[in-house]
Amino acid sequence: MTGVPRRRLLGFAGAGVALAGAGAAAGAFATKASPEVENVAAAKVPFRGDIQAGITTPAQDHMHFVALDVKTKSRDELISLLKEWTVAAERMTAGQEAAENGAVGGNAEAPPKDTGEALDLPASALTITIGFGPSLFDDRFGLKDKRPERLIDLPRFPQDDLDPARSNGDICIQACANDPQVAVHAIRNLVRIGFGRVAVRWSQLGFGRTSSTTRDQATPRNMFGFKDGTRNIKAEDTDHLRDHVWVSKEDGPDWLVGGTYLVSRRIRMHIEIWDRTSLVEQEQIVGRTKGEGAPLGQANEFDEPDLHVKGAGGIPLIGEIAHIRLASPEALNGARILRRGYNFTDGSDGLGHLDAGLFFVAFNRDSRTQFVPMQQALSTKDDMMEYVEHTGSGHFAVPPGVKEGGFWGEGLFR
Amino acid sequence: MTGVPRRRLLGFAGAGVALAGAGAAAGAFATKASPEVENVAAAKVPFRGDIQAGITTPAQDHMHFVALDVKTKSRDELISLLKEWTVAAERMTAGQEAAENGAVGGNAEAPPKDTGEALDLPASALTITIGFGPSLFDDRFGLKDKRPERLIDLPRFPQDDLDPARSNGDICIQACANDPQVAVHAIRNLVRIGFGRVAVRWSQLGFGRTSSTTRDQATPRNMFGFKDGTRNIKAEDTDHLRDHVWVSKEDGPDWLVGGTYLVSRRIRMHIEIWDRTSLVEQEQIVGRTKGEGAPLGQANEFDEPDLHVKGAGGIPLIGEIAHIRLASPEALNGARILRRGYNFTDGSDGLGHLDAGLFFVAFNRDSRTQFVPMQQALSTKDDMMEYVEHTGSGHFAVPPGVKEGGFWGEGLFR
Repeated sequence: MTGVPRRRLLGFAGAGVALAGAGAAAGAFATKASPEVENVAAAKVPFRGDIQAGITTPAQDHMHFVALDVKTKSRDELISLLKEWTVAAERMTAGQEAAENGAVGGNAEAPPKDTGEALDLPASALTITIGFGPSLFDDRFGLKDKRPERLIDLPRFPQDDLDPARSNGDICIQACANDPQVAVHAIRNLVRIGFGRVAVRWSQLGFGRTSSTTRDQATPRNMFGFKDGTRNIKAEDTDHLRDHVWVSKEDGPDWLVGGTYLVSRRIRMHIEIWDRTSLVEQEQIVGRTKGEGAPLGQANEFDEPDLHVKGAGGIPLIGEIAHIRLASPEALNGARILRRGYNFTDGSDGLGHLDAGLFFVAFNRDSRTQFVPMQQALSTKDDMMEYVEHTGSGHFAVPPGVKEGGFWGEGLFR
Repeated sequence: MTGVPRRRLLGFAGAGVALAGAGAAAGAFATKASPEVENVAAAKVPFRGDIQAGITTPAQDHMHFVALDVKTKSRDELISLLKEWTVAAERMTAGQEAAENGAVGGNAEAPPKDTGEALDLPASALTITIGFGPSLFDDRFGLKDKRPERLIDLPRFPQDDLDPARSNGDICIQACANDPQVAVHAIRNLVRIGFGRVAVRWSQLGFGRTSSTTRDQATPRNMFGFKDGTRNIKAEDTDHLRDHVWVSKEDGPDWLVGGTYLVSRRIRMHIEIWDRTSLVEQEQIVGRTKGEGAPLGQANEFDEPDLHVKGAGGIPLIGEIAHIRLASPEALNGARILRRGYNFTDGSDGLGHLDAGLFFVAFNRDSRTQFVPMQQALSTKDDMMEYVEHTGSGHFAVPPGVKEGGFWGEGLFR
């Protein structure tokens, strides 16, 4: 989200500054990206490693997310596609074209192998992350017995208003970068490679990351004007990552060890209604002050919320149904999630309002005991539900990182 | 379009760096922004001046554009709204909240006067530009005799596929900034101020400016992967601005002198089909090389196209229906336009493809003799039409800048 234009930055901190983190072993994230280089345009995040990049990577400023339906019925074609995607994705995260001489240096009589719109742009900390939806594990590809027990069809939550055309999908790909054109280019070229084998089911563009994922990132604000994600799991919280994010050997299945589960929710915010509520009411609904983002009763954003402190008349300062209480580990048997969402504004709703909100993306180790109970609590009790509407939903198993010589999701086909 | 995160830049080049340019007199743009400061997050573009900012201002990286229907039938309410908007817009372009103590410092029992999501963000070179559509000049507000003759209802062009829900509008507001959250915040707060008096008709988010508007900006690429806007009118071209952009006293009407006309076209690009054409064909359709962006037959991007040079067999290197020939001043009796468009990606089209393209915005002095003949030529002859689809359209009279003590469009009501 900007500053010095990317082109000017090519020589700024040196092209090819590599970010530590993505290649580190799951559960061992001492490798914090240096604040000086983490977000410069030239930054490159390693594609290969024990875990996929784009989960604990410092949240970039922009996201393009796509959900795909697989159209081929051939297991071999699916495997070939995953191999081709892996090559292209690794190249693009290194700031290269999707294929060598892809845009202009190849056979001029043939369609270019790269679409070209990122030709002059640096890597911009691009990460590309893949996930597999429940529907991939049907009869088509012999994957039925590979479906993780935890990869449930998400239940219908109270007040859900899901659009099937904005929900689910066989495969999801999340591209995050500090330049939206780089993220869009990545998704577009992967879709192009998949032509005839996959089709776009839905896609979402996001800006203004709504969660920080490392301690040195400032907490951004969502479209309600509040800081969002203060208590998020950070890349430095290795114990939390182990306990709440990464699938372990004991969890299984084998092919998913070092992976995680991604939940996406397109949350339309009825900002016009929110904007007509008083500051006091907004702060009570959230449980934090709007300016500083401090828990009610505390002074500073990062003060621990005191869920017991009472104000005048013995009423808890952080109300019984305040958002941060309902979503707190204290209220959810210790459950935490790693959030990595973005704001969106998608034109208008046809009723005189902007269609804006939060594209919620979270990673957890078992959605059945983490995301689902959290969303159950929020959807039944949270006053914030009066102001939001869940219009899209997805659940995907995110395989571990790609080792040298391997390809995305290869464990699935062993 | 990124680089160093905005927050880190607050102390980078000094907060409050003001951009020259917007306040200069129409037709006298010697005041080129310094390349060192033009795009830093802290940059502020003066709101008031003889012309509106956001036209010759160095193109920022992001845009949020909205078209509004006026719902009140009261001329006085419309005037009040324009006055309130002017105050809020000037504040926001200075990096302030829409109202003093707007987000958190006011009466906590009342709805905040600023929605808060830009609280921690610098001005990001925000510009906010207003325009008035033909429909504003009907019977409602006594403006019938103020309608400029040149503010025509645009003709239907061959192959137009316009969606009424993405076209026209009584008023347009263009917000451009180097941080999308700043641009979205600006539009949202103006819409909020107008609640009950205006309603959102359509809105469009854009990234990756597709035209440079000053000589020191690199030419960006559109979703076809080509550099776009090489021959655009630049802020330094004072003669071209005078001849092709600014409404003069002789042109009239009086209230629009120092203003211009804005044409918007939402151009869906069928990128999947484009991506299946050969490099040679793409370059012949455009008339430029894809890599360097040089006119065919030349070596460098900024070489003047030679429309007469012939290749083997006496066939012109730049074909008779190449895009850059059809759109050239040479083919259009000298007509030029100032382009200031953005790329977009709006989810998917429901048919398995991304809904991506170009949100074309152009400024000209008389759309009847500039944009219209250009689009007539392109829509009837240009092979590129096989790959694009115009899905939205707008035409707006853009009033001159706001003087000290004045308000947006005040000349209309004298």
